[in-house]
Amino acid sequence: MRILSRSAYLPGHQPEVNQNLIKLNTNENPFPPSPKVADAVLSEVGNLHLYPEPYSKKLRKLIAETNNVSEEQIIIGNGSDDLLNLCVRSFSDNIRSVGMLVPSYSLYPTLASLQDSKLLKVGFNDDEFNLPSTDIINSGVNLFFLTNPHAPSGRLFSQSAIFSIASQIDALLVVDEAYVDFAGESSISVLSSCDNVLITRTFSKSYSLAGSRVGFAISSPEIISVLDSVREVYNVDRLAQAAAYASLSDVEYFNNCRVKILSERNRAYKFFTDLGWHTIDSHANFIFTEPVDTFGQVGKNVAQSLYNFLEKNNIFTRYFPNHHLTESKIRISIGREEHMRILYQNINTWRNEEC
Amino acid sequence: MRILSRSAYLPGHQPEVNQNLIKLNTNENPFPPSPKVADAVLSEVGNLHLYPEPYSKKLRKLIAETNNVSEEQIIIGNGSDDLLNLCVRSFSDNIRSVGMLVPSYSLYPTLASLQDSKLLKVGFNDDEFNLPSTDIINSGVNLFFLTNPHAPSGRLFSQSAIFSIASQIDALLVVDEAYVDFAGESSISVLSSCDNVLITRTFSKSYSLAGSRVGFAISSPEIISVLDSVREVYNVDRLAQAAAYASLSDVEYFNNCRVKILSERNRAYKFFTDLGWHTIDSHANFIFTEPVDTFGQVGKNVAQSLYNFLEKNNIFTRYFPNHHLTESKIRISIGREEHMRILYQNINTWRNEEC
Repeated sequence: MRILSRSAYLPGHQPEVNQNLIKLNTNENPFPPSPKVADAVLSEVGNLHLYPEPYSKKLRKLIAETNNVSEEQIIIGNGSDDLLNLCVRSFSDNIRSVGMLVPSYSLYPTLASLQDSKLLKVGFNDDEFNLPSTDIINSGVNLFFLTNPHAPSGRLFSQSAIFSIASQIDALLVVDEAYVDFAGESSISVLSSCDNVLITRTFSKSYSLAGSRVGFAISSPEIISVLDSVREVYNVDRLAQAAAYASLSDVEYFNNCRVKILSERNRAYKFFTDLGWHTIDSHANFIFTEPVDTFGQVGKNVAQSLYNFLEKNNIFTRYFPNHHLTESKIRISIGREEHMRILYQNINTWRNEEC
Repeated sequence: MRILSRSAYLPGHQPEVNQNLIKLNTNENPFPPSPKVADAVLSEVGNLHLYPEPYSKKLRKLIAETNNVSEEQIIIGNGSDDLLNLCVRSFSDNIRSVGMLVPSYSLYPTLASLQDSKLLKVGFNDDEFNLPSTDIINSGVNLFFLTNPHAPSGRLFSQSAIFSIASQIDALLVVDEAYVDFAGESSISVLSSCDNVLITRTFSKSYSLAGSRVGFAISSPEIISVLDSVREVYNVDRLAQAAAYASLSDVEYFNNCRVKILSERNRAYKFFTDLGWHTIDSHANFIFTEPVDTFGQVGKNVAQSLYNFLEKNNIFTRYFPNHHLTESKIRISIGREEHMRILYQNINTWRNEEC
């Protein structure tokens, strides 16, 4: 028998849940889900011997209402990763290629490799992460992944830029809006004039459900129906459907958590810019900054040194050494106030120890 | 943009949970999961803002212990469907083909079609569903799906037959043991002498967790590591991992449910054979029988008539009209005693109404 070769996706480190650890590495929400989630989950446990409702109907309906679109424009996935995968499977193969921004989400190349699709990487022209629109429009791919807000930079691309790309590219434009709730603006309005756009969202970040794996996509009914026919029939389990529904219903809790995270992000931006560190004005729940040591130096060694120092002190952040636009920076998820305070103390200690 | 064509899998009807409905169509367990599942799930809800442990480590360990194999021989999937899909993605493509018994699980062709793999169908030589071993061995495929106990017949193929195929076929032999806990014997022992065998299992049936979507596979460490590198990183969510672990731990509850189902299955077998209906001696949690009307007739119209009659009376069973070995039969999942009694009453009414 013969075995396929493929490149695997490596996730951020997922240590066991532990009170002594400050986890700022995988952009999780620092707050647990709404208390209504526990009630919703518990009321479904007694039905677990029955298969899930295969279309996640109630959840689709609520998402459609929340986003002012029709139910036929919504699909639910086992995390938005499931939906990104369905896009690759439906819109690419060894002839029709996939495009992505580099750096961005490192799952895209894995998905393309699994489908044996050619991958075209579009780079940034500067370390402010301005959108290389012309390169995207001229990329010649059949499917382009545009992460907005962008990760790992946190940069928000304007709606006019997204519209301009969508209306000129002959491809499915997937706008991956995993972090949109921390940005305040979405590409949903582009959908009404461009039927080649699909927006993916997730409950993992702003809705505190990374452990449940629920995502959704918004697009034209035609594209949604293609993805629906390719997805695993029972792709979202009973408890995940119930948890997502309860979470989306509790608007007040959602807003409270979001406000706290945005206020912590502002504080973090001020902290790093006050240190004189080059820091992107983030529109996500993380911040991307270029550490400077006491000698005024930046670079790969400096970023690695801070990353290692923090990890030794039980603070997990994310470091991407494999690209020239990321190798001198670290990405820090926005945590609770008390954890961010410990982070800042540790960074100050690191700066002094470097003397 | 260009869109892929594919054939979709159609699941059995999944009506809303409803007290008035007797659901004997998708081989679910008629009993809710162990009470320990609710406790386990509730204790994880507060961690839902954190990603799941990506390897389902604790669950792998418990499954390894329960089955007397090493942890490196286990992989956990989002339902066993996830694992069947990983097998197709890793062991087939447009050159290396997939084989299956026909009739058997109708998901296999869907998975093969998604991977653009050629599908070879091996038919049965009689309606006793005896295993066509030679045809399987000579099929020339790179991956063969062997459902044992077989569905929809319920027939159990002997371990010596499985061993004989495994040791002669130059392919990955996937033994889909979704119903094995109702059969009493597994192909695990074949693993020690044949490294081309992979066994899939599910928590959906015997463990009452169809709503949670957890499956696992047992194979050689080499094959498991291939599948591990292709699977979605967070393929099993926190609540599903917790539910499966609790369910597997409660051996007493599991055995109690199983004994009740086996005893109901015996009663069902007696009921149908007493009627003179050709009924396979099932080793699964369903029974496959050929309805005879009062005029002594069998056939497509008779099976369809009973199926429709039962559905009209809120009893859902499964009817497969598209194959000559299934078109005159219906498949009935084994339910609770009180529901089976209502089934028998309805069948008797149908027989009288046919006069």
